[in-house]
Amino acid sequence: MEAGDLAAGIDVGGTKFLGVIVDADGVVRAEQRRPTPSTGDAIIAALGELAGELSAEAGPYTTLGVGMPGLITTRGVLRASPNVPNVTELDVAGRVGELLGHEVAVSNDGTCAALAEWRWGAGRGVDDMVMVTLGTGIGGGLVAGGRLVVGANGFTGELGHMVVDPHGPPCPCGRRGCWERYASGSGLAHLARVAAVGGRLRRVVQVAGGDAQLVRGEHVQHAAREGDEAALAVIDEFAWWVGLGLVNLTNALDPEAFVLGGGLAQGADLYLEPIQKWFGALLYSSDLRPHPALAFAELGERAGAIGAARFAADRLPRRA
Amino acid sequence: MEAGDLAAGIDVGGTKFLGVIVDADGVVRAEQRRPTPSTGDAIIAALGELAGELSAEAGPYTTLGVGMPGLITTRGVLRASPNVPNVTELDVAGRVGELLGHEVAVSNDGTCAALAEWRWGAGRGVDDMVMVTLGTGIGGGLVAGGRLVVGANGFTGELGHMVVDPHGPPCPCGRRGCWERYASGSGLAHLARVAAVGGRLRRVVQVAGGDAQLVRGEHVQHAAREGDEAALAVIDEFAWWVGLGLVNLTNALDPEAFVLGGGLAQGADLYLEPIQKWFGALLYSSDLRPHPALAFAELGERAGAIGAARFAADRLPRRA
Repeated sequence: MEAGDLAAGIDVGGTKFLGVIVDADGVVRAEQRRPTPSTGDAIIAALGELAGELSAEAGPYTTLGVGMPGLITTRGVLRASPNVPNVTELDVAGRVGELLGHEVAVSNDGTCAALAEWRWGAGRGVDDMVMVTLGTGIGGGLVAGGRLVVGANGFTGELGHMVVDPHGPPCPCGRRGCWERYASGSGLAHLARVAAVGGRLRRVVQVAGGDAQLVRGEHVQHAAREGDEAALAVIDEFAWWVGLGLVNLTNALDPEAFVLGGGLAQGADLYLEPIQKWFGALLYSSDLRPHPALAFAELGERAGAIGAARFAADRLPRRA
Repeated sequence: MEAGDLAAGIDVGGTKFLGVIVDADGVVRAEQRRPTPSTGDAIIAALGELAGELSAEAGPYTTLGVGMPGLITTRGVLRASPNVPNVTELDVAGRVGELLGHEVAVSNDGTCAALAEWRWGAGRGVDDMVMVTLGTGIGGGLVAGGRLVVGANGFTGELGHMVVDPHGPPCPCGRRGCWERYASGSGLAHLARVAAVGGRLRRVVQVAGGDAQLVRGEHVQHAAREGDEAALAVIDEFAWWVGLGLVNLTNALDPEAFVLGGGLAQGADLYLEPIQKWFGALLYSSDLRPHPALAFAELGERAGAIGAARFAADRLPRRA
């Protein structure tokens, strides 16, 4: 990006759109939100309107990018997305581009978040980085050799569906023991419910209102911060699974740093030490190599939108 | 590489060195072998001698590269290698360079094999490729966005130690259920012995000489080629594990092609179809995306040496 550029980016989340305009230093100059509609046509229209609102707030943008979860082709077509389950083969780039009269770039939200954290967040200055978003599921994005890696089809970073235990619990994707069954927000809740039903988590169940089936990740975090031993044991088990997946990625990709984002990055103080401990225990030739830094994301919920803005700015000509 | 360049490369294997000189088209102009010595000093001396023999055969080389298994830093220092277990912190690039009076580049053998197959073998013309060498263990190398990926320390491609089943059999690396416990040559033998001890593999045990504990991968292959159902079932189980690991790599890296090499690539006719079947069954959103091509390596046992030659030619100045 060059001085004077204003890059617009919109992140299509499960419940809301979050749009921003950033300048060439990554400073947010405009921010707009609206609810995510449920049909493809309404999504296209809403993207167009939000782009207009961003322009009205910060002045005309030079490029526009969109980030969405799911499989987005390199030409900006949404194959399928968990956030808009009835929509397939939606040509987001083509249709929004036609609506607005200029080119639009579209990419996966994990790839966008990785790009944002790499350029303007926790991964600044790192040439080999893996972003892992620990939310309800697990997403992510890759930087290797100083370049964003999008893959042959634009589908890199579906890290949550790495199988880490073929005998594990079933995943909605149809397989068993995907990493996100353990190391995500829903994974932490699952580990906690297993422990709670086994009678090991009295304090956590109290925090959750008395019903073991209602235990969620934040109840475990709450009890763990009080020093509850059983809650800390669940955090430790969770950290083991996070560490295992990070080790698998390190064996393949040898990153200099991981950037951990998503909702669970809020609990960084609880997780960092046990994740590092298990990472060191599980890594191949652990004592013979530098360990990648574990950093927590800095851009929060805006990472996807900021990254979508940067993604387009790096690829598209400026609007006339 | 430019016309007229002669790139020398030496692959340090467990039992032998294999050295080549290739021209700018990848054509092998010289080939030399010698046994792998057991000490660091002897390895350095032998590398120097073999380089001289290659020159004597094909004329002076313009660059020299070395490929070795294990952790090789980007500066060409061997941290540790399974093939020379008592050697650590061996400055291969520095010491061979001093011996010969010119710069030398050193890299991991899986990375070298990937580079060779990408430039001159089964991965020609592909921008996103994962090489997987299925030998006694599993190694590999990565190409992403049209560039070789070496990682922050030069350690990419340790694919065999991706954990795919934390309850699985112990691995010499200290963990359980590493991919190479299942999907390598020793993995196939392990799967076969489990089946044989269970009494399911009569024909295979016959082929192995009557003792279930002596069953190896090639006995399973032999019986499977005769059409033995029980042997084919072991091949199918093996293919499931190969497919699982390839799926995990696809979710992360979205390659256009896998190139499968190593000793097991010899049995391509037996494996290709079941691997493709299980790959399709296990891949996330399998029906919504193109599947990467599964290609078998073309350069055989010379891939490491040819890749080491190319690795150096891409990085080093030509000798004066």
